[in-house]
Amino acid sequence: MLSASSSDSAAPEQDSAEPTLVGAPARPAPRFRLDISYDGTDFTGWARQPGLRTVQGVLEESLSKVFREPVQLTVAGRTDAGVHAEGQVAHFDTTAELDPAKLVHRMARFLPKDVRIRDVRLVPAEFDARFSAIRRHYAYRLTTAPYGAEPLQARSIVACRHDVDIDAMRAASRKLLGLHNFAAFCRRREGATTVRELQRFGWERDGDLLTAYVSADAFCWSMVRSLVGAVLAVGEGRRTPDWVGGLLNETERSSSVTVAPAHGLSLIAVDYPADADLAARNAQTREVRTVPSGESCCGG
Amino acid sequence: MLSASSSDSAAPEQDSAEPTLVGAPARPAPRFRLDISYDGTDFTGWARQPGLRTVQGVLEESLSKVFREPVQLTVAGRTDAGVHAEGQVAHFDTTAELDPAKLVHRMARFLPKDVRIRDVRLVPAEFDARFSAIRRHYAYRLTTAPYGAEPLQARSIVACRHDVDIDAMRAASRKLLGLHNFAAFCRRREGATTVRELQRFGWERDGDLLTAYVSADAFCWSMVRSLVGAVLAVGEGRRTPDWVGGLLNETERSSSVTVAPAHGLSLIAVDYPADADLAARNAQTREVRTVPSGESCCGG
Repeated sequence: MLSASSSDSAAPEQDSAEPTLVGAPARPAPRFRLDISYDGTDFTGWARQPGLRTVQGVLEESLSKVFREPVQLTVAGRTDAGVHAEGQVAHFDTTAELDPAKLVHRMARFLPKDVRIRDVRLVPAEFDARFSAIRRHYAYRLTTAPYGAEPLQARSIVACRHDVDIDAMRAASRKLLGLHNFAAFCRRREGATTVRELQRFGWERDGDLLTAYVSADAFCWSMVRSLVGAVLAVGEGRRTPDWVGGLLNETERSSSVTVAPAHGLSLIAVDYPADADLAARNAQTREVRTVPSGESCCGG
Repeated sequence: MLSASSSDSAAPEQDSAEPTLVGAPARPAPRFRLDISYDGTDFTGWARQPGLRTVQGVLEESLSKVFREPVQLTVAGRTDAGVHAEGQVAHFDTTAELDPAKLVHRMARFLPKDVRIRDVRLVPAEFDARFSAIRRHYAYRLTTAPYGAEPLQARSIVACRHDVDIDAMRAASRKLLGLHNFAAFCRRREGATTVRELQRFGWERDGDLLTAYVSADAFCWSMVRSLVGAVLAVGEGRRTPDWVGGLLNETERSSSVTVAPAHGLSLIAVDYPADADLAARNAQTREVRTVPSGESCCGG
């Protein structure tokens, strides 16, 4: 679902938008943080792709028109086609005159209704939406109602055909918490590590609605949907929590894990350190990337 | 928004689906109640219209295929194009074999995702989705967020351009409670009364989200959206609560009332009496209809 390695052929533009190195002299153009939400249904994911409607493409085109200069966005989490975001974060640099509050109002009228710029903030030059992030939070939403998903929520809630055993799902999810090699849950990327620290994987029930909350320092490509798919197999009685735990011993993607549908997934928040700690965090993230065994394949 | 008079040329089918008279011998075909929800965005309202995609049309076609006999629905509230429902109620009669739980599951797969049959129940022959109803409840949803409506909710939440004075809106709404002639708020129908008892018109705020809850025995056509539009004019400082109260003295539709957009409106519930009181309620509703000054133009 997320992708950030230079081998990501589907989204080469991301790399050209990388910021200058940490420690370089202060850039002349001020940096702005955007808080963004979108309904992923009618987008081919975040990353700009020629001829396709993507969130990055729509936002960069709109901002470039408003500023009358090219705008390039760097994003926290490059979501796949169909995946939503309620708390996406991006940054860009511009020397154009910019009143944050006015820009929010202006973009509210300018942008299509399925993508919103919720907030615009001037940030320190060290803020990097991708490299400064310390944690990503996703929600995955399902319903076990016999009639399916409520129509007004059907774009973001997946209908389960059967009821599920939430206690077994919670037991399975707990087995995955911590620092592990999540290779079984990740689409392979050449030279990219699949070691991640899964910090939260909890399930909440509200009537027929089930929500998984999944948080980690970063995620591999398709990881959240694979985690949810594996745990759902337990909820439906097809697998055991121990089977899920055993997947952590795999060294490559497991064909026995079903990737849950994209439209249940939403990026709900990204955490950043305090301004004073941004430079240290960037250095730490980049340091990890130079070590093959520790390289972050995406989102981190 | 609702329409039930015989002069409603847009929805002539409704009248042909009227039940037999109360007091007639028990009908041979059992009667079933359907609880229905839909996203009104891609429907031209509830009522069947030739060549248009309507909720009634989609449901009747689907049910007729499943039962292999024509199914005709009678509905509690005939919503306009773009209006949603979370608690719509309809009934139909059939001699076909029908297991309610199985039908819900089957229709969940058979129907498009923007309409759901939430529940199916065998009801007494006296139950009439339209004539037995004692109260309809609507919600109207707005946001004052500067960036507009959240994308995943944009189909059912209207974006206000400005913040609003909710205290003034509450004061204006209170002036409309009770039994009044709501002519100023109703699209005219020949021979139909516009006297209604508005039982609830309250506003709740949750952050940027504003929800109006509007309940009455029945509503005239476009009444809820006109009530909301009039009160919004107060919230935006263009009118006073007294102006809203003064509209109750009008005897025909007021051109100064702006009808609020359809997509903010949703029929959230319909109340019915206990089974033992159904026959009395039907008689009361029909009695009212025989008196020109008391005829219910729609939904009651």
